[in-house]
Amino acid sequence: MTATFRIALVQMACSEDRGANLKKACARVAEASDAGALIVCLPELFQSQYFCQNENTWYFDLAEPVDGPATQALVQVARDKNVVIIVPFFERRMAGVFHNSAAVIDGGGEIVGIYRKMHIPDDPLYYEKYYFAPGDLGFRVFQTRYARIAVLICWDQWYPEAARIAALQGAEILFYPTAIGWHPAEKSRYGERQHSAWETVQRGHAVANGLYVAAANRVGHEKTGAGDGIEFWGSSFIADPQGIILNRASHDEETILHAECDRRLIDDVRHNWPFLRDRRIDAYAPILNRAIDPE
Amino acid sequence: MTATFRIALVQMACSEDRGANLKKACARVAEASDAGALIVCLPELFQSQYFCQNENTWYFDLAEPVDGPATQALVQVARDKNVVIIVPFFERRMAGVFHNSAAVIDGGGEIVGIYRKMHIPDDPLYYEKYYFAPGDLGFRVFQTRYARIAVLICWDQWYPEAARIAALQGAEILFYPTAIGWHPAEKSRYGERQHSAWETVQRGHAVANGLYVAAANRVGHEKTGAGDGIEFWGSSFIADPQGIILNRASHDEETILHAECDRRLIDDVRHNWPFLRDRRIDAYAPILNRAIDPE
Repeated sequence: MTATFRIALVQMACSEDRGANLKKACARVAEASDAGALIVCLPELFQSQYFCQNENTWYFDLAEPVDGPATQALVQVARDKNVVIIVPFFERRMAGVFHNSAAVIDGGGEIVGIYRKMHIPDDPLYYEKYYFAPGDLGFRVFQTRYARIAVLICWDQWYPEAARIAALQGAEILFYPTAIGWHPAEKSRYGERQHSAWETVQRGHAVANGLYVAAANRVGHEKTGAGDGIEFWGSSFIADPQGIILNRASHDEETILHAECDRRLIDDVRHNWPFLRDRRIDAYAPILNRAIDPE
Repeated sequence: MTATFRIALVQMACSEDRGANLKKACARVAEASDAGALIVCLPELFQSQYFCQNENTWYFDLAEPVDGPATQALVQVARDKNVVIIVPFFERRMAGVFHNSAAVIDGGGEIVGIYRKMHIPDDPLYYEKYYFAPGDLGFRVFQTRYARIAVLICWDQWYPEAARIAALQGAEILFYPTAIGWHPAEKSRYGERQHSAWETVQRGHAVANGLYVAAANRVGHEKTGAGDGIEFWGSSFIADPQGIILNRASHDEETILHAECDRRLIDDVRHNWPFLRDRRIDAYAPILNRAIDPE
């Protein structure tokens, strides 16, 4: 392994044309690779518009198996370009069992494994509990040819437990494919603090665990349900092991966001602030409770 | 309980004169109360300079029992002013067993309980493992007359597990008495990112758990060991349940930092972003490992 590895996040808009979305994703990954990226991450469910704004049975027809069209197309890109790719997809596991998943494809085109989103949201216009069974593979780390990476998806971002368990498995970087945005009616009043909280909690994971964090979000306004739709807030970013933002995309433009990661910095930060040494694993069992009622 | 409760943090310099430090602390708490604060937090080990820059047996003589001079003096202030006070102190539990502790004194002057620092650091000029046995009371929440509060101390700041376990017990606010600063030789190169990481990870706890966070630090340069001493970085702050900084002190001046907390905002934030509902308590057991070796 080299001391450094360059990564890229594809921040993209997703149209109603699934074929066009996949074609664009393949082109962007190839472009990122040509610009030097060794690992490229696509946004959550990039093949379609964010259909979870509504609960409709016909959207289940969008789902694919692990070796479906999206992964097959991107396996080819991975092989051609010798690039590691994180490929989120709507997984059909069997009739009635679907997941919000991501495949990790190594530079040679092998599928190293898949992650199934563990924390499933359900709030207005994000009706994911209808579509996705909670993941049953746990929090996973994948050894690729360029880095040891964890993949977590969107709502997982808010959970320090997920980041920590990935770090304990040796993750050097957490990738978060994402689809998050503003309710247009809320944006002027709450938009800034919502976005700030989102970025802050993830920078906090970087600090607490001494590793890189990279979140790839989509952009654009999409209306697939009732109401005003969602304005996806972009702002894909990459933070270093002290939570410093290395690169951040705009709120509304498609872009390929690059950053150079240096695994020596992970060592350096953890040597200077040895948090992992002092964890009180004898005293953390209460974290396994839903809530702790007063005695 | 009222919908809101006003808190204050005492950011102070600590001299070599222990009597003067305690007298100042009492005066500042009274002043904070007169200005409307219902709960006041003092900095870690405020009675003395930060002696952990060196390992010397004679510093053990600074330790006091739970009902020692510091708590007795502040019990009187709590009773006089009807104010809740968080009183950090160097606890002598028995010969050879010492803790870095904090007493929570309720408005009537009763000691509600004590917290013993769970995560003990040890790095250059912060040789705390020499002085303090790790806490054995776990992560605790205290029901006071004005709010349900958790107390965690300094190095605990970096551990999401501690914040989470407090939140699960119903904490509305996390208080972090602190003694953190820069090595003067590192300040120009690393100072800004060190401070930023410190504030960010704590704002992250506020976001992840939907509660208030308040950190009370000391100011001033102190040299109690070899080397250049420590320049304590002040910057005490109070963040709301979305991680927004409500108030922040300067790097170098003594001050009393106030903020109004609104428990309705805790409900509001948690209703809109119901993270606690979706925790995967069935899948968090790996967090109880020191590290997870590759299979």
